[in-house]
Amino acid sequence: MALDRLKQMASQVTGQAKPPHPFDPLSESEIERAVAIIRKEHDGLFFNAVTLWEPRKADMMKWVADPDHTQRPHRIADVVAIGRGSKVYDGIVDLEEGKILNWELTEGVQPLITMEDLQIVETVVRKDPKVIEQCGLIGIPPEDMHKVYCDPWTIGYDERFGSSVRLQQALMYYRPHVDDNQYTYPLDFCPIYNSDTQEIIHIDVPAVRRPVNQAPPNNYHAAAIEAEGGYRTDLKPIEITQPEGVSFTMDGRIISWQNWKVHVGFNYREGMVLSNITFNDKGNERPVFWRMSLAEMVVPYGNPEHPHHRKHAFDLGEYGGGYMTNSLSLGCDCKGAIHYLDAAFVNRAGAATTIKNAICIHEEDAGILFKHTDFRDDSVTVTRARKLIISHVFTAANYEYCVYWVFHQDGTIQLEIKLTGILNTYAMNPGEDTKGWGTEVYPGVNAHNHQHLFCLRLDPNVDGPNNTVFQVDAVRGAGEVGSAENKYGNAFYAQKTKFETAEQAMSDYDGNTSRTWDMANTNKINPYSHKPVSYKLVSRDVPTLLPKENSLVWKRAGFARHAVHVTKYDDAQIHPAGRHVPQTSGEPSPGLPAWIAANPSASIDNTDIVLWHTFGLTHFAAPEDFPVMPAEPMTVLLRPRNFFTKNPCLDVPPSFCSVPSGIRQGNSLVDKVSRLAFGQSKGQETGGKCC
Amino acid sequence: MALDRLKQMASQVTGQAKPPHPFDPLSESEIERAVAIIRKEHDGLFFNAVTLWEPRKADMMKWVADPDHTQRPHRIADVVAIGRGSKVYDGIVDLEEGKILNWELTEGVQPLITMEDLQIVETVVRKDPKVIEQCGLIGIPPEDMHKVYCDPWTIGYDERFGSSVRLQQALMYYRPHVDDNQYTYPLDFCPIYNSDTQEIIHIDVPAVRRPVNQAPPNNYHAAAIEAEGGYRTDLKPIEITQPEGVSFTMDGRIISWQNWKVHVGFNYREGMVLSNITFNDKGNERPVFWRMSLAEMVVPYGNPEHPHHRKHAFDLGEYGGGYMTNSLSLGCDCKGAIHYLDAAFVNRAGAATTIKNAICIHEEDAGILFKHTDFRDDSVTVTRARKLIISHVFTAANYEYCVYWVFHQDGTIQLEIKLTGILNTYAMNPGEDTKGWGTEVYPGVNAHNHQHLFCLRLDPNVDGPNNTVFQVDAVRGAGEVGSAENKYGNAFYAQKTKFETAEQAMSDYDGNTSRTWDMANTNKINPYSHKPVSYKLVSRDVPTLLPKENSLVWKRAGFARHAVHVTKYDDAQIHPAGRHVPQTSGEPSPGLPAWIAANPSASIDNTDIVLWHTFGLTHFAAPEDFPVMPAEPMTVLLRPRNFFTKNPCLDVPPSFCSVPSGIRQGNSLVDKVSRLAFGQSKGQETGGKCC
Repeated sequence: MALDRLKQMASQVTGQAKPPHPFDPLSESEIERAVAIIRKEHDGLFFNAVTLWEPRKADMMKWVADPDHTQRPHRIADVVAIGRGSKVYDGIVDLEEGKILNWELTEGVQPLITMEDLQIVETVVRKDPKVIEQCGLIGIPPEDMHKVYCDPWTIGYDERFGSSVRLQQALMYYRPHVDDNQYTYPLDFCPIYNSDTQEIIHIDVPAVRRPVNQAPPNNYHAAAIEAEGGYRTDLKPIEITQPEGVSFTMDGRIISWQNWKVHVGFNYREGMVLSNITFNDKGNERPVFWRMSLAEMVVPYGNPEHPHHRKHAFDLGEYGGGYMTNSLSLGCDCKGAIHYLDAAFVNRAGAATTIKNAICIHEEDAGILFKHTDFRDDSVTVTRARKLIISHVFTAANYEYCVYWVFHQDGTIQLEIKLTGILNTYAMNPGEDTKGWGTEVYPGVNAHNHQHLFCLRLDPNVDGPNNTVFQVDAVRGAGEVGSAENKYGNAFYAQKTKFETAEQAMSDYDGNTSRTWDMANTNKINPYSHKPVSYKLVSRDVPTLLPKENSLVWKRAGFARHAVHVTKYDDAQIHPAGRHVPQTSGEPSPGLPAWIAANPSASIDNTDIVLWHTFGLTHFAAPEDFPVMPAEPMTVLLRPRNFFTKNPCLDVPPSFCSVPSGIRQGNSLVDKVSRLAFGQSKGQETGGKCC
Repeated sequence: MALDRLKQMASQVTGQAKPPHPFDPLSESEIERAVAIIRKEHDGLFFNAVTLWEPRKADMMKWVADPDHTQRPHRIADVVAIGRGSKVYDGIVDLEEGKILNWELTEGVQPLITMEDLQIVETVVRKDPKVIEQCGLIGIPPEDMHKVYCDPWTIGYDERFGSSVRLQQALMYYRPHVDDNQYTYPLDFCPIYNSDTQEIIHIDVPAVRRPVNQAPPNNYHAAAIEAEGGYRTDLKPIEITQPEGVSFTMDGRIISWQNWKVHVGFNYREGMVLSNITFNDKGNERPVFWRMSLAEMVVPYGNPEHPHHRKHAFDLGEYGGGYMTNSLSLGCDCKGAIHYLDAAFVNRAGAATTIKNAICIHEEDAGILFKHTDFRDDSVTVTRARKLIISHVFTAANYEYCVYWVFHQDGTIQLEIKLTGILNTYAMNPGEDTKGWGTEVYPGVNAHNHQHLFCLRLDPNVDGPNNTVFQVDAVRGAGEVGSAENKYGNAFYAQKTKFETAEQAMSDYDGNTSRTWDMANTNKINPYSHKPVSYKLVSRDVPTLLPKENSLVWKRAGFARHAVHVTKYDDAQIHPAGRHVPQTSGEPSPGLPAWIAANPSASIDNTDIVLWHTFGLTHFAAPEDFPVMPAEPMTVLLRPRNFFTKNPCLDVPPSFCSVPSGIRQGNSLVDKVSRLAFGQSKGQETGGKCC
C-alpha cells in the first residue's frame, strides 16, 4: 500500500529503523508491548511464550510478491500465559492495533516447561524431606543434600497423574565435588514435582535399590585431564580467515549468498526458521521453499522397566529448542568470519530477555565442487566449493544438539545435526545385568538405549506453492533375464508413485530401493528432461520408531510413525505433536494423526502442501560416548532435480581451467596461501600449477 | 634379524636412504629392476603391471611386532606381462635375490586395460573405413573425422567374442570444436576394437539411427562462461593456513597423527592402500585394521537395449584406480598445508613412470568435537575437532572419483567418496522416448540410469587378527504393549547375530533396523561394558544390486550381490571380482563367490577374517548434472564401539572450558583469528569469550 511505503519513507527521513520484516522474530520492545497490551485486560499472569504469530501465508505471499502495493502484514504476537489456578491462556495480540485479537482459556493442556520452570526444581528437591529420606537410603547423608542435583524433565505422560496438574519428573544425580560430572552418579529414585504448588507430590522408588555409585569421578574438565597427563600438545593451529570479508550480505535478517536468498527467523520452540528461500536462476528469482524448520523431535528410551518409559523427551515441543539455545562464541562454536543473530524471548515475569549470538552464520570451504580431466591431454577444470552455514546449538539437560542449515552453490540445501553432550544415565549395582536395555558405560553407570527422532517440516514452494509429492524407488525392470525386453537382466528405473491423498502419503523409508521423495511442481516441466521441476528429499538415517504400535510414545509422537507425511497446507498446522505437548496422553494422537484423520482423502495433488519428514538415529551407547560424547553427525539433503536446465554453479570461478586448444584459462580467484606441509621441495614445481 | 639392523646402520653411515618399508610401493628403480630380471629370461613382452607383491601377512605381522629380530620381508614384484600372440603371463620376482620366483602363462584371461591401451584406440577409430562410413550415415563427413572422439571401455563381456581376444568397445562422440564437451554429441554406434591387432573388428549399429546432435554446445570452459556473462565476482577468498606447520609427521610413508599411525601404500589397481593402522591408547599402540582399500567397483547401467548392457565398468579391476589417478595441485584439489606422495608405475615398454602428487595428505578443522553446557550455571566445555585426510582423485574416462580416507580424533575412520565429472551419455532423436531407462539431460543427450557400487576390503585387526563379525539390528523388545515385561511398549535393543561361516555372513543392508556390522575381538572384553572390543561398520548408502539374479552383471560382479561378505583371511584373496577382470563371463563367478563356494562352512568365528562391504548409490541423472556434475558425496564410517574405556579425545585442548566452581580453565590453543563478519559491534563483547 502507498501508506506502507509512505511510512517506510518517513522512517528513513526521521532516521528511524525501518520496520521489521514480517517474518522477523518479535523484538524485545515488541515482546514487552504484547505483555503490556495483555496486562491492560488480564492480570496475575506468568508468561510461557510470546512469539511471532506468523503472517498468514496467503497474505504474506501477496506482500512478498509486491510489497509496495500490498498491505504489510501486521506485527502480531502469539502468547501463552499461565494464570491463577494453573489456567492456561492462548492469546493473539495485534501489536499495531494495540489490541487482543483472541484470548482463550485452554482446558486440559500443559504448555512447555521453560528454563525458569526447570531451574526451580533442584532447590525444591534438595529440601524435600521425602527426597532427603530416599537419599539417605542409598547412602547420601542429609548434610550432603547440596551435592544432590536433578535434571527436571517433563513427565511425558503418567496415567496416575493425568494432564490437569503441571508436573515434572526429577532425574536425580549426585556430585561428590561441585565440578564433578553428575552423570557418573545417577540416583535410583525419581521424584515427581508439581510446578504449580512447587512441591514433590510422589517419588517413584524401584523395587531393587541401588546405592549411590562408589566409582571414582569420570570428568572431562581441565583438572581431570591434567591429572591424567594433561592436554595433548601436538596440534598446530589451523587459521581460517577472510581478509576481504565474507561473501554474503544481510538485509535485516535476509541473507543473500551465491544466488540464494533466505530469511532467518527464530522462535522459542523450533529455534531457527528459514523462510521464503529463493534461488536466483540467471536473474529469475525462483521460489524453492516457503518455510523450513525442525518442528518437533522425540527421544524414546528403550528400557521397559518402570518409570523409564516416561523418558521420551519432545525436546522442541516440551522445552523449546529456542529457549534452550546456547550463546555462541567466536572461534569456539564456529570458526572464521562470523555473523551472529541474537534471540529475544519473554520471561515468566513478562520482561524481555535476549540470548546473544544465538545464531551463527558463516561460510566454509567445501572441497571440490566439480572436476573433470580429459584423459587424452590432461586438460582439466577443477572448481572449489563454498558452503553457507546457519547454525544454532541447544542444550537439552544432559544433551547437546548442534543444528546446521547448509546452503550449497549447486542448489542443494542440507540439514546437518550433530549430537554431542552427555548420555542420560541411570544407576546400576555392581554386576547387575542391563538385560540389553542399556550399556554399562562406566562402573555403576547404565546408559539406556534410545532414539533421536527429528521431525523436519518442509513447506515446499518449488516454482510456486502448488506442489505434488512423488515417492521414488529404484527398481528392477520387468523382463526376466533372457527375455527380449531385458536379455542381460540389467534393466532398472526410477519408479515414481504420486501421492494423491494425505492417507496414502504416510510412507516409510526403504533402504532396498534407495527411496527418496520428490517435491515437484507438475505445472512446470523441465524443457530438457520433460519432467516436473522438483526438489528431492534424500535422507538415509531414517530408523523405524521402535516403541510399538499403540505404545505410549507411538500415541504421543504420531509424527514418528512414518518417515514421510504430507498434508494440505493449513496456517494452523505447525506443531506435529500438538501446540501444547507436555502431558498429552496420545488419546487421540495430537498433531499430524489428528489432522490427517480429519480428512484422510483430502487431495494433496498439485496444491499447497507440507511434507513432514522424520529422521534420526538409534543409539546403543558405548564407553567411548562417556563422560562426554564425540559429536555424531547426520544429514538430510534437499537436492534440485530437473529444476535447472544445467549445473547452476558453472560460473563459480575455477581454481584451474585448461582446454585442449591450449589456452590456459585461469582466473583471479586462485588460492595463494596453500603450502607444502614440509617446506619447499621438488613437489612444489609440479604441484603448484594453480598458484 | 641382526643382519637387517646392520644393513640399516650401514646405510645410515654411507648416507644411503634407509630401505623401503616392506609395505612401500615399488620405487621407479625397483620397477625397472623387476623388468630387467624378467628380461634376462623372457623377451618380447609388454608390461601390464609391475607392483608390490605384498609381504605375506604372517611374515609381516612378525616383522612389525619385532623388526630388529625378525627377517625383513623381501621386496618382491607382482608382474603381469603380455607376450607374443597375446599370451598373458603372471610373474613373481624377488628383487633382493634377483630372481623370478614364479612365471606362469595364464590362459583365458585378459589383464586390465592401461591408459596406453586406451589412448591408441581413438587414432585407429578415426581411420577405420567402417567407422568413417557409419559417421557419414549420421551426418559427419569424412573430412571431419578429426572431430570424432571415443572413450574406449573394456568390452565387459560379449558372448559373441568371448574372452580369448583382448577387446575394447569404443563409446563414440563428436566435437564441433576441439574444446567442446563431446558428451553433448554422443554417436549412436559402437565399434569393437581388438587390442592385439589394433583393428576394429565389429561395429554395433542400432536399428533406429540417430543423426549427430544438432544442439548448440553445452560447455563449462571459460569461453562458454564468458559468453553467458562471465564468472561470478562475489566470492571472497577463504584463506586456510597453518603458520606453525602441520600436526602430522611422516616417517617414510608412515603417518603419525593424533594417536593414529598408518602406512600409506598405493598400487595401480586399488589406488591408496592403508596398512597397519594403529591407535595409541594412552601409550598402548593398539592395532585396529591390518589393511583397508577400495578393492573393486562396478558401474552397471540400466538400459536393457543392446549393446548398453555392456556398460558396467569395473573401474578398479578393468582400468586401475591407480593408473587413472590425477596429479594433484596445491589449493585446487586440497587446500591448506599439504603433503604429497607420488606414484610410480611401469609403462608398456617396461620403463618406470611417475605420477607426481598422486596422494594428498592434509588436516582440516572439523567443527565441534564435543560440547556440553550445564544449564544451571552455563559452565561449558567446547572443543573443536580436527581431521586428517588422505586422498586421491581418479578419472575414469568421463567420470571422476575423489576418494578421501578421513581419520578423526575420536577413533573414527571415515571413507568419503565424491562423484563428479561428466555423465556417460548416449544419442537420442528429437522427441524420442527414453522409456525410463535414462534422462534427456540436454536436447539429444540421453544419460542412462546407473549405479556406482564400490567394494571396500577391510582386514580388521581389532586388538589382534582373530576377529568375529556380528550383524547388529535395532529391534523391538518381545512383550506386547500392556504386558508385564513391556507395559508401555517402549522396549528395544540391539540384536546381535554372530556370523559363524562365510555362507551365513552374506548379508544385506536393512534400513528398517538401522543395520550395522561389528568387527569384534571376542577375546578382549571392555572392562566397563563387558562387551567385546569392536569397530562398527556404519554405512547408509547401500543400494541393492539392481541387475537381476543371474544377469551378466550379477554373475561378473559377485561381490555386489550382498552388502557384506566375510571370508577367512587368505593372502591370495585381494580382488573380489578376480585378478584379471576384463572379459570374465561370470561363469563361474570369480573372486568372492568362488572363494566362498570353495568352503562355504569354513569358520569365520574368532579367526583372521576379511570383511567386504559393497556400498554406493543409484543415479537417475537430471539436467543439473550436466555438462559437469556437482560433486555428490557418500560416506562409510568405521567407529570404535566398546574399544575404549572412555571418549579417547578428552585431552584435545578445548576452545573454552569452565567449571561450576568458577575457575576458568582455558588453555593455549585458543583461536585468535576468527572475526565478526561485518566488523566490530556489540556482538564482539559477548561473543568473544574464547579469544
